[in-house]
Amino acid sequence: MPENTFNNQVIETLLNHKSIREYSEKEIPDGMIRTIVKAGQQAAFAYQSYSVLLSREKEKHPFKAPLYFIVCVDLNKIGKIMEKRNWQIATNDLSSFLFGIQDAAYFAQNMVIAAESLGLGTCYIGSVPYFADKIAKDFKLPKKVFPLVGITIGFPAENQPTRPRYPLDFVLFEDEYLKLDEKKIDEAMQEMDEGYLAQDYYKKANFMVKLIGERKETFTFENYSWTEHISRKLGQWDPSPEKILEQLKKCGFDL
Amino acid sequence: MPENTFNNQVIETLLNHKSIREYSEKEIPDGMIRTIVKAGQQAAFAYQSYSVLLSREKEKHPFKAPLYFIVCVDLNKIGKIMEKRNWQIATNDLSSFLFGIQDAAYFAQNMVIAAESLGLGTCYIGSVPYFADKIAKDFKLPKKVFPLVGITIGFPAENQPTRPRYPLDFVLFEDEYLKLDEKKIDEAMQEMDEGYLAQDYYKKANFMVKLIGERKETFTFENYSWTEHISRKLGQWDPSPEKILEQLKKCGFDL
Repeated sequence: MPENTFNNQVIETLLNHKSIREYSEKEIPDGMIRTIVKAGQQAAFAYQSYSVLLSREKEKHPFKAPLYFIVCVDLNKIGKIMEKRNWQIATNDLSSFLFGIQDAAYFAQNMVIAAESLGLGTCYIGSVPYFADKIAKDFKLPKKVFPLVGITIGFPAENQPTRPRYPLDFVLFEDEYLKLDEKKIDEAMQEMDEGYLAQDYYKKANFMVKLIGERKETFTFENYSWTEHISRKLGQWDPSPEKILEQLKKCGFDL
Repeated sequence: MPENTFNNQVIETLLNHKSIREYSEKEIPDGMIRTIVKAGQQAAFAYQSYSVLLSREKEKHPFKAPLYFIVCVDLNKIGKIMEKRNWQIATNDLSSFLFGIQDAAYFAQNMVIAAESLGLGTCYIGSVPYFADKIAKDFKLPKKVFPLVGITIGFPAENQPTRPRYPLDFVLFEDEYLKLDEKKIDEAMQEMDEGYLAQDYYKKANFMVKLIGERKETFTFENYSWTEHISRKLGQWDPSPEKILEQLKKCGFDL
């Protein structure tokens, strides 16, 4: 093996990640579910401040995936434990939430990796926080439990290539943050845009983010790619924090 | 293999995680660092909104670890890319931060797993956000880059057991969130407390969280365990969000 790369089954699993949005009918054994969640739990934590909800009603799931998990930030459980020790939570919600998200995210990522190592496909559903109130109602969540992210899981019925990422030197900075000169930015954009175009990613998905207001569409699937896609999201979506603050509040978090 | 468990090198790596706080002198080849960061990058993302800082000045690191990584939420890079496309970030800081933390955390967890698969030990340093301003100065961070979590990495010079976790049925809830009756709470507390006591965890660390105010110490290392430890943190620390809001603000995030 060359000195500049290392490999094993774990590295291969990590490098081979891609989101899967089409699933086969094949059932997932209960033992696999337990293994996946237990592997999630072994991630590092500050407060073990997470729970995971599971639904098997595939008709209701994104992509009709056989399994739909919703990972939640959960300060309810530790609150109950603290009551039994004659304590109550004094830490402010922003700080406990900041660590709670990390606990939940490390747990979620372990679940994804464990699932993929067993031949399953996964897809994160990032929009979950915007429907927190509905999920809270469906799953009868107590206060201080906030649905953070969904994960669809099932055996894949599609084969996708891995997607491009930024060049390593746009991500890893030793001793000092990189001066982002034009060249570095262009290189990063090129890596992402040419990579997605070469895979016809948005053409196959038949999706462009709609322009709001006076901007006129000048792109086609021949040149619409990742940086334009992300620009339209972050450039247009969700200018006010009201919606997300309201969802957090409904779940008992006062940020 | 019994129907209720599945195993492979990946699952084993995940289940075998423990934090390492003593490191050997053995050098980590550059190729390993690249492999670890690349494995991190292949995690799912919303906006690739992270960067990772690296220091090799071990004298300055927690536990004098050979390598110290600081994973940051980074909205600066995507902002620069958007400028080149004639856009600017319109999304509110809370929402972009909510997705940015997840991007950064999935990336960080992949790094940890990749490192552990290569025989390295790791430890998350969760206090990083409270020193964001100092890190920003040391690494010359631009605005919109927020240091989220540190990761120490090196070859282990200690052998630790894996630590206990909540019972699976305290974490995974199918269709409906568990009614947390006394029995379930007691079981979860017992699992954690007896597990940590059996390993003499706090005795070996010679550490109890100090009581603030009028509460008198009644615990010894014979009965001080995880739920008391966490209760004292969440029950006493950081009642006001001011400190963390100020650090976020200094880094250009107005939450």
